[in-house]
Amino acid sequence: MAQKITPRATDYSQWYIDIVINAKLADYAPVKGCMVVRPRGYALWERIQQGLDGLFKATGHVNAYFPLLIPESFIKKEAEHVEGFAPELAVVTHAGGEKLEEPLVIRPTSETIIWSMYKKWIQSYRDLPILINQWCNIIRWEKRTRLFLRTTEFLWQEGHTAHATSAEAEEETLRMLGVYRTFAEEYMAVPVLHGVKTDSEKFAGAVRTYCIEAMMQDRKSLQAGTSHYLGQNFAKAFDVTFQTKDKTLDHVWATSWGASTRLIGAIIMAHSDDKGLVLPPRLAPIEVVIVPIFKNETKDAVVAFARKLRDTLAADFRVLLDEDDQNTPGWKFSEYELQGIPVRLEVGPRDMEKGQVVAVRRDTGEKAFIPVSEAGATLRALMQAIQTSLYQRALKFRTDNTFRARDYAELGKFLDDPGGFVEAGWCGDAACEARVKEETKATIRLLPLDKKETGGVPCVVCGKSARDIAVFGRAY
Amino acid sequence: MAQKITPRATDYSQWYIDIVINAKLADYAPVKGCMVVRPRGYALWERIQQGLDGLFKATGHVNAYFPLLIPESFIKKEAEHVEGFAPELAVVTHAGGEKLEEPLVIRPTSETIIWSMYKKWIQSYRDLPILINQWCNIIRWEKRTRLFLRTTEFLWQEGHTAHATSAEAEEETLRMLGVYRTFAEEYMAVPVLHGVKTDSEKFAGAVRTYCIEAMMQDRKSLQAGTSHYLGQNFAKAFDVTFQTKDKTLDHVWATSWGASTRLIGAIIMAHSDDKGLVLPPRLAPIEVVIVPIFKNETKDAVVAFARKLRDTLAADFRVLLDEDDQNTPGWKFSEYELQGIPVRLEVGPRDMEKGQVVAVRRDTGEKAFIPVSEAGATLRALMQAIQTSLYQRALKFRTDNTFRARDYAELGKFLDDPGGFVEAGWCGDAACEARVKEETKATIRLLPLDKKETGGVPCVVCGKSARDIAVFGRAY
Repeated sequence: MAQKITPRATDYSQWYIDIVINAKLADYAPVKGCMVVRPRGYALWERIQQGLDGLFKATGHVNAYFPLLIPESFIKKEAEHVEGFAPELAVVTHAGGEKLEEPLVIRPTSETIIWSMYKKWIQSYRDLPILINQWCNIIRWEKRTRLFLRTTEFLWQEGHTAHATSAEAEEETLRMLGVYRTFAEEYMAVPVLHGVKTDSEKFAGAVRTYCIEAMMQDRKSLQAGTSHYLGQNFAKAFDVTFQTKDKTLDHVWATSWGASTRLIGAIIMAHSDDKGLVLPPRLAPIEVVIVPIFKNETKDAVVAFARKLRDTLAADFRVLLDEDDQNTPGWKFSEYELQGIPVRLEVGPRDMEKGQVVAVRRDTGEKAFIPVSEAGATLRALMQAIQTSLYQRALKFRTDNTFRARDYAELGKFLDDPGGFVEAGWCGDAACEARVKEETKATIRLLPLDKKETGGVPCVVCGKSARDIAVFGRAY
Repeated sequence: MAQKITPRATDYSQWYIDIVINAKLADYAPVKGCMVVRPRGYALWERIQQGLDGLFKATGHVNAYFPLLIPESFIKKEAEHVEGFAPELAVVTHAGGEKLEEPLVIRPTSETIIWSMYKKWIQSYRDLPILINQWCNIIRWEKRTRLFLRTTEFLWQEGHTAHATSAEAEEETLRMLGVYRTFAEEYMAVPVLHGVKTDSEKFAGAVRTYCIEAMMQDRKSLQAGTSHYLGQNFAKAFDVTFQTKDKTLDHVWATSWGASTRLIGAIIMAHSDDKGLVLPPRLAPIEVVIVPIFKNETKDAVVAFARKLRDTLAADFRVLLDEDDQNTPGWKFSEYELQGIPVRLEVGPRDMEKGQVVAVRRDTGEKAFIPVSEAGATLRALMQAIQTSLYQRALKFRTDNTFRARDYAELGKFLDDPGGFVEAGWCGDAACEARVKEETKATIRLLPLDKKETGGVPCVVCGKSARDIAVFGRAY
């Protein structure tokens, strides 16, 4: 039976966990901080993978697979990289019954192992660019974890590209940021800000980190994808040079970019309600559930009618027919609302006679009678309407919860009540950034790429002239 | 440029490695025994995954993801399981900068972690069956490794199902053996024997292990997939009970089954030749390569013609057009032969005038002139012909290299010359099996499921009455 979901207003964190657990998306694993992605959560991940992978391939990328285990010495080759990741490493010290000569770390990200291979594969500009992505698991020993949003092990994709020029690498970095933005907005129906991280928030080893940030329903920000311009940092650490067209030798230029099972958390938090999960049709593993409503004497006819409908729709939609006669229709309605299936079709004896079905939208609860002969076309339009409406609702929420702070007091006020994104002038000094973090727990989420003119405003912290308009927010 | 492949007759092992490395399917990783699956190898793995995953879903299975790290104590809960896997474990002793209270092992297979979760999820017969599969990476610390065939880390799928009765679990075990057999024969074009392993060769923790075995071109056997009937072994180890329909309590019945990146090795070894890889069309990432043949003055016209052909074919085939003008057509022919693309289409100015293309089969080298207007239909037939022909050739090779030994001397003789599968009577005694292994390095690959009548023959070793006709062979 559908279990009770704590309302958002009562306890937002508990609401989120209740949805994940009760909709059977994931469960806690026996190892601290790890999760089991259950079939319903994994089906969503498969939809995400398929969508992203299609966008990667359309932009010329290919998949490969690099080893899980990385010699500890590799991680140490790039100074900032090891500083950033050392505290989170899981280390294999014994294998095959013996102590290893050199400990191996489980990949927290794969720049080092991949660049050790690129050294073998790249000699000349003719070997470039390399546009490789991999889908894999990652371990980062996290202190505080939350299902999907931050787990010790997670699934992700990581792209690692190698280029002959800095300009090409920069272009690739921004192209992939664009891919993430497209995916978030058009597939997940989650509007995102895109921009660049400050130095203190960038990836350990990057020259610059770009990101997309989405606002959740508790007004906190969630980083949903990052794209790093790595310059020549890893090429230098692994001594990867190539012969240029003019026969000189240069270090290779690099990017890396990743998105993870965290996206599932973003989808849940952006759209769901107190009845359970709400999924954007484009990513929903099941788009339509058909619930036949019958008594003993009408069962055969109604189920036959429902099966025919299912068979007709199955060519164009991911459709489920629930013929079970142990649970009541009411129970099923709640269950599929909990599961977030975008549209429910109800079919009873009277509908059958009239050649119609009742369509119920998961997002709004709106009901409509649809002639069976038009079911396909109507559903197609309905899916598009739901997809658009989820996006627009999230966008309005973000707009309504984005503020401009003129001074430090206002920054703190907006962050506390109601929360959200707060735009404010920033001088560019890490000390000012650190003070905000220390005193408000908010960070600079990004410096917008469509750079707003500062208009001569002062830094919200120190009052000096602002270099950027920064977006501040509390984050997951 | 296409590098030299050592001929099979000179050095079969080196031939295999030359193909893997030169066709850029995989490369050696910096960690001993690990491999990097390069984009061409991974594209083949993606085709394999897609095919198998479709067969799994068609038989009612869903995917999920369980953690990489398993508490050491879990592995020890099933006595045979730990005995089998303990020598191959990689152990994480430190994480997050601290020594762990309990070491964690990297999964060598996931029965234990999965059954620890099934304990939470299964209470009643209503929760059964559970039909879960996962695609993931595995670590087994192997002493002797060979790219794809046996590597310390490999990619695989592992199905783990839970059932209310022994009969259902047995049925599932055989169903999945059938899926592997279908996949090997119809997708990989590799004929396989199917049968049951002897006790000494079965999976550590299984009641019975079924397998498919394929003969490679050096007449050695390769185990290409296994399906295990686990009885109640893991349910007992993890105390997983359920309320039956009659309100009694019983331990749950289980199966597990897996196939890995080793399948790539099987495909290479079964079909390839001294020019390089030969791929079955159904799994080839690229089915057709178009090589335009032109001089400076004809380039534009020929390339335009080739592009039109590519665009026409692209709706039905995975097609590549190589427009490069740095490499000669001859170089390209060798390169795509090395890569194993099933059909090459050559188009020159004269072909263009005649409205034809030259089609060259990778498997036989046969050439045919095809009218462009019939290219699609002809290619469709050609792909089918190649797929069938590869299978038939491999089947004939296996038939030609399967022998019946009447006595121990004959068993040894056939195993040495020419090698292959040797059928012989076996009494069922592990000692006889062990003697063969010790003295000939051959093992019982399987006891065929379509059980041959022993016809009263004696055990090939001890001369006592045979219980089975066993298939002996040397194996990878």
